[in-house]
Amino acid sequence: MDDDAFDKLVADLRGEDAPRVWSLLVTVFGDMAQDGSSVTSAVLGQITARIGIKPEAMRVALHRLRKDGWIESERRGRGSAYRLSPQGRVESVKASPRIYAREAPEGACWLVLTDPAGQGAAPEGIAWITPNVGVMAGEPQDQDVFATRIGAEADLPAWMRARLCPPELVLLTRTLGDRLDRLTRALTSADQLDPVQEAVLRVLIVHEWRRIVLKLPRLPDQVFPEGWAGALCREAVGALLDRLPQHRPRDLEAALAA
Amino acid sequence: MDDDAFDKLVADLRGEDAPRVWSLLVTVFGDMAQDGSSVTSAVLGQITARIGIKPEAMRVALHRLRKDGWIESERRGRGSAYRLSPQGRVESVKASPRIYAREAPEGACWLVLTDPAGQGAAPEGIAWITPNVGVMAGEPQDQDVFATRIGAEADLPAWMRARLCPPELVLLTRTLGDRLDRLTRALTSADQLDPVQEAVLRVLIVHEWRRIVLKLPRLPDQVFPEGWAGALCREAVGALLDRLPQHRPRDLEAALAA
Repeated sequence: MDDDAFDKLVADLRGEDAPRVWSLLVTVFGDMAQDGSSVTSAVLGQITARIGIKPEAMRVALHRLRKDGWIESERRGRGSAYRLSPQGRVESVKASPRIYAREAPEGACWLVLTDPAGQGAAPEGIAWITPNVGVMAGEPQDQDVFATRIGAEADLPAWMRARLCPPELVLLTRTLGDRLDRLTRALTSADQLDPVQEAVLRVLIVHEWRRIVLKLPRLPDQVFPEGWAGALCREAVGALLDRLPQHRPRDLEAALAA
Repeated sequence: MDDDAFDKLVADLRGEDAPRVWSLLVTVFGDMAQDGSSVTSAVLGQITARIGIKPEAMRVALHRLRKDGWIESERRGRGSAYRLSPQGRVESVKASPRIYAREAPEGACWLVLTDPAGQGAAPEGIAWITPNVGVMAGEPQDQDVFATRIGAEADLPAWMRARLCPPELVLLTRTLGDRLDRLTRALTSADQLDPVQEAVLRVLIVHEWRRIVLKLPRLPDQVFPEGWAGALCREAVGALLDRLPQHRPRDLEAALAA
């Protein structure tokens, strides 16, 4: 695909606000180098440049990620190469199931009440409705908690859905859903993409979805508010990633050298 | 049964604190004259005297009940006769199903969540756990409320049971349970009771139970706290009332005249 056409695709998918560079790099490493592979500054520079990020901003972000212990670096030829630190790998692996999930949690979930006067720790993975009432995908094991199953057929009132996923987040799913839809249609009629273009789109798709999905409570689709497009996003992300090969960093190096 | 033995039964059933006289009279009219029958001051005087209430206290209470519109009075011979007002009958009839119920509400109940930001009326008959979470025996029909069924097998944590029925009320059920148990055993080996004695015991049993049962949330037995004796009380009350005939006021008048 020629550069102009591709830049338009990227601009539409990215939206008006430039992504935070360090966060985008977290996506890059998590998507193409979760196994600890090194990614050269040349490859990172190409990917970020196509997304509209300046070299200086990338260097600052790499410095921050290294300082935070997320990545490690080594000299490689005239540039550097970067890989996830052990801690960065742990965090990436932990987030992956949610980011790459093809299925929602199953239909039933659990309404959980904790003792309003209690001091104990609350169950993990709970989406709070009020300070002592929440919903979670699995049955909590805590003795001191009351939990009752909400069947897949339950119809939650609007106020409850809005507390599980606020309107701002609903809007983000709709906006991304629209962008992914336009991208899917554009790619259907598009020329062949080169490997770096494929990598750029993959990174942006995963990044935009990651920003949303990690904020969503892990709950079955039917508890979300009317107009929520998270399920459509998940499906579109899955279909697009199936279509865009996951290149290894060294393959992208070779493609750049060619 | 001779007077001394009977007074001991009454003293044990009544406990140390004398009942509020107007409230006891509400029980008398509700139990023996809910159909609007008149009860003479002579009959009322005999019943209350056996419970340890002075004539002056009875007169004050009758005055108050008449002023509140609960009862009406008319001259009858050298004394007066009293009957429930239409409003008093409505209230008595309304409370009766709970006071005289032989069965608890069925095993399942509903956990109800109302919108914490909502202004609407909450469902009736709800036992609140927190300001927007409660439990009720039936399914609420309100659109804006979330309700989910709590099965009979559900095991509520202790803090939740204690919010449905506080420790003071649990203690009252235990105390009454013990008294009813002692009365039941005493009556098994007792001499024949006369009609006024039967009426006095009946009134006291209904009265002591009424004071508790109308404070209890109308919920299945299994949601109450450990040590709660409400089910035992209900059973003992039922068995004792089966055994003590419900005399009509005019039969008691006749018995007194005999």
